Amino acid sequence: MTIGHEYVGEIAALGSGVTGLTVGQRVSGEGHITCHHCRNCHNGNIQWCRDTVSVGVDRDGAFAEYVCIPQENVILIEPSLPEDVVAFFDAFGNATHTALMFPVIGEDVLITGAGPIGIIAAAIVRYAGARRVIITDVNDYRLELARKMGVDAAVNTAREDLPQIMKEQGLTEGFDVGLEMSGNGAALSQMINSMRNGGKIALLGISNKPVPMNMNTIITKGLTLQGIYGRRLDNWHQMSYMVQGGLDISPIITHRYHYTEFEKGFEAMNSGRSGKVVLDWTAKRED
Amino acid sequence: MTIGHEYVGEIAALGSGVTGLTVGQRVSGEGHITCHHCRNCHNGNIQWCRDTVSVGVDRDGAFAEYVCIPQENVILIEPSLPEDVVAFFDAFGNATHTALMFPVIGEDVLITGAGPIGIIAAAIVRYAGARRVIITDVNDYRLELARKMGVDAAVNTAREDLPQIMKEQGLTEGFDVGLEMSGNGAALSQMINSMRNGGKIALLGISNKPVPMNMNTIITKGLTLQGIYGRRLDNWHQMSYMVQGGLDISPIITHRYHYTEFEKGFEAMNSGRSGKVVLDWTAKRED
Amino acid sequence: MTIGHEYVGEIAALGSGVTGLTVGQRVSGEGHITCHHCRNCHNGNIQWCRDTVSVGVDRDGAFAEYVCIPQENVILIEPSLPEDVVAFFDAFGNATHTALMFPVIGEDVLITGAGPIGIIAAAIVRYAGARRVIITDVNDYRLELARKMGVDAAVNTAREDLPQIMKEQGLTEGFDVGLEMSGNGAALSQMINSMRNGGKIALLGISNKPVPMNMNTIITKGLTLQGIYGRRLDNWHQMSYMVQGGLDISPIITHRYHYTEFEKGFEAMNSGRSGKVVLDWTAKRED
Amino acid sequence: MTIGHEYVGEIAALGSGVTGLTVGQRVSGEGHITCHHCRNCHNGNIQWCRDTVSVGVDRDGAFAEYVCIPQENVILIEPSLPEDVVAFFDAFGNATHTALMFPVIGEDVLITGAGPIGIIAAAIVRYAGARRVIITDVNDYRLELARKMGVDAAVNTAREDLPQIMKEQGLTEGFDVGLEMSGNGAALSQMINSMRNGGKIALLGISNKPVPMNMNTIITKGLTLQGIYGRRLDNWHQMSYMVQGGLDISPIITHRYHYTEFEKGFEAMNSGRSGKVVLDWTAKRED
Repeated sequence: MTIGHEYVGEIAALGSGVTGLTVGQRVSGEGHITCHHCRNCHNGNIQWCRDTVSVGVDRDGAFAEYVCIPQENVILIEPSLPEDVVAFFDAFGNATHTALMFPVIGEDVLITGAGPIGIIAAAIVRYAGARRVIITDVNDYRLELARKMGVDAAVNTAREDLPQIMKEQGLTEGFDVGLEMSGNGAALSQMINSMRNGGKIALLGISNKPVPMNMNTIITKGLTLQGIYGRRLDNWHQMSYMVQGGLDISPIITHRYHYTEFEKGFEAMNSGRSGKVVLDWTAKRED
Repeated sequence: MTIGHEYVGEIAALGSGVTGLTVGQRVSGEGHITCHHCRNCHNGNIQWCRDTVSVGVDRDGAFAEYVCIPQENVILIEPSLPEDVVAFFDAFGNATHTALMFPVIGEDVLITGAGPIGIIAAAIVRYAGARRVIITDVNDYRLELARKMGVDAAVNTAREDLPQIMKEQGLTEGFDVGLEMSGNGAALSQMINSMRNGGKIALLGISNKPVPMNMNTIITKGLTLQGIYGRRLDNWHQMSYMVQGGLDISPIITHRYHYTEFEKGFEAMNSGRSGKVVLDWTAKRED
Repeated sequence: MTIGHEYVGEIAALGSGVTGLTVGQRVSGEGHITCHHCRNCHNGNIQWCRDTVSVGVDRDGAFAEYVCIPQENVILIEPSLPEDVVAFFDAFGNATHTALMFPVIGEDVLITGAGPIGIIAAAIVRYAGARRVIITDVNDYRLELARKMGVDAAVNTAREDLPQIMKEQGLTEGFDVGLEMSGNGAALSQMINSMRNGGKIALLGISNKPVPMNMNTIITKGLTLQGIYGRRLDNWHQMSYMVQGGLDISPIITHRYHYTEFEKGFEAMNSGRSGKVVLDWTAKRED
Repeated sequence: MTIGHEYVGEIAALGSGVTGLTVGQRVSGEGHITCHHCRNCHNGNIQWCRDTVSVGVDRDGAFAEYVCIPQENVILIEPSLPEDVVAFFDAFGNATHTALMFPVIGEDVLITGAGPIGIIAAAIVRYAGARRVIITDVNDYRLELARKMGVDAAVNTAREDLPQIMKEQGLTEGFDVGLEMSGNGAALSQMINSMRNGGKIALLGISNKPVPMNMNTIITKGLTLQGIYGRRLDNWHQMSYMVQGGLDISPIITHRYHYTEFEKGFEAMNSGRSGKVVLDWTAKRED
């Protein structure tokens, strides 16, 4: 698992009445337990269910030897998928949900926020055929990590000029697609101002306070803004398929620890100088 | 034509090189002259063209005996369509563009702003099979006009409680579709708070100042916000087809004047106690 | 219930482990029991699940006092919905699935096959704002029933000329949307030839033998053909909402019997001179 | 230009009234001259215009020193794009139109027909993030060319078993997306039988005779079939953007000749042992 609430492991035991699963199967789990009866659930949009219970928040999570989840939340993981990457399919799923919300083939994409999810999203849109992928942040460590993942430009907006870099990258009308991953009002404003008419924005980054929005820009540019929460169940399928097709997001893993060293993991995560931190949950190492 | 820049009339003369049109044909005109070469124009999204010239704003408009527009902007109007209604196909087009942005069949729709465009949009979504159509404003005259157009509830938010009326109308999870026609920040906030998870909002109402937006609500609810500007060329086709199919928006016409009485028309329009004001532009009446 | 496998009733008993349901609730049931784990199920497309078990085909159905189905297949029915109509929500669901596959607001729609599902589909597209609704069949009884449901033209193709009727109805380029409900190869060919370029066809009618298709027409016209099977779970929601919004499909009910008179019901259904045949399943009448 | 009717060159002269273009600009041209007034043209779907005139078919084409086309059909070509590839943007456009009709990110794609357009389509879906790309034909030369373009499997259906190869490639439910490029009825049948439930098929290959279609398979599988004709104007933009983003389709060029050697070009093209044949149309070489 990762520092977070993501995990991959094997089925240890089955509750009564569970069908179609076997002890020992390699699985992960969707972290939102939903009603499966409302209109959103019926439409494959469990991320919009009103009666969500969150594993690791509203009930015991994966920071333990065993985690207990309903059958519907179990996701079978093909043995061919690399353990390290499956360990963070939850965050990868957020990135996939956001990155694939709008078609990006041949498009110019702006990502605001170079946290792990933003960087993974950059890798996804690159893999999905985007023309130019530009990411912004104010953290140089993370921008460097994004460069390793293959973005065309990683921009520190504290000291670099985005319009200038857009010009250097050959953009003439603005970005076609924006992925807001920072939760920062200034970043969102810059994104809105940098889109072309008819551009599409997916919003993932949570913000603590109301953001002043220039509605006229959204209206006269004909922008689309789409709030993104959690993952669609289909994202789990898409993640496996993209990895099998050749998408390599392993460079986002910057730290690996045995679970007994979890404090080092948290330290790395809180330092602002990390990507994903993966914990090895196998039996205690002898050392 | 209407008090505004909308019109219907006959082709009086053709410029050199014009093909496929004939003097005397009944026509209206799309008010945005666009480049027809950019990607948005190529995709049928002329409303997003960066090089727009606006008839009646950037060049001479229809408040005259003759109006001159490029061939591409001429819209042929079938003789069977009622003159009065065609006179405001421009505003009807804004309403159509907004109202049909998202599917409304069987859905509950909130419209904020009961100006003429909002009321026409109410008629469209009712015609298109919406389950409940609720409109809000603070102008009782316009709310009454909306009632005549067939809304399920017309709510004066200055003194009525929208959540209570939603309950009375049988809504349990919030609105499926919202059409923001007021340009009022408080109305938009109320709309965002009144949507169901996964709801869709089309934004037409221009606002003079930035609106503080609770991005977290947009994100956790998974809302879609779509800026709407002008009309798609397809909206001209759709308007004719809806009217031919039975949509009657004539109740929105509250005043009719000969063009020589245009001052009365402006007075009615500015009074806040009018729907559409139609001017008769035929030869001067003898009176 | 109807002569068929559709039903509405009350929950008589709950299996162990069932949550969120109560004895006595008014319910119907989705007739396809699916896996809920495959990609199609995850996407809200249970109609495409490979591991479908059909109630009334692969296991005991509703032609009995009680029917047993999994919790996931139970559909709650609001008390305000008319019993008679809910009795055939299964067929209504097929019609809804087909009729709402493509937008019909302002469009001209051809329906081939005036069986109960075709006629219900006609009512739906009319309700959803279609401009012209034309239905074809060779059975005059059913065409007459379609007329009662409000179609613009009901055409007996054995003796009437569809192109001529299209012209009378004001069509100039062909139908925008086609709903194939007959399973008849000649009807499908006529539909393909009657569509406008870019038209959309939803295919529901099952056919016993391969149909010779002119692929070049499909290609040069840019037609879309969409196979329709069963219902999407969302269709159950949409049906309730449309009925609550004012859609009245009760004219399709032509016969009502007590269940003890089921033989009369089958006779009516097999006569070719019926719409839906509804059986009353309440305690035996004293007569 | 290519052996065909595709070309790239410079504007030699402008007709009267042409605006926004300059002599000497590098351009290509959309080969279908359309009305720009019908609903399809208004929606950016010029490929569906009923009043199409085809350059090189209905009027003089590009097999000459100069070609004359209307202003609306001129496509500006960025100087950075490689001349050789732009020479066949017409065919590349057919491939783009077909390949991007449905999302392919993470999906398994079957292409039937390994002619130049089929092979280019394979490169596009690979670039767009498809998981597995499998192409079928009976011509070993072309299958080998497809392998050079990076397909996962190139299958000679005359002697190889597609289901077996699907299994080897890790497919379990069938293809998600099919691109029919052969115009061969047997290939289309095999495609329909090889799709997963809910699969999407784009049809480009023209066929001389009606194809017997098993409609029941299309219906019970819920397949989508989309006829593809010509190009959308947006495809011209997408082609440039994909090439700028890194898509390299130059391996499809197997022969290059000076235009005076056009007979060799035709010979190559008719041999069945060629990809695209590019002619150099610059001043006669001295040799």
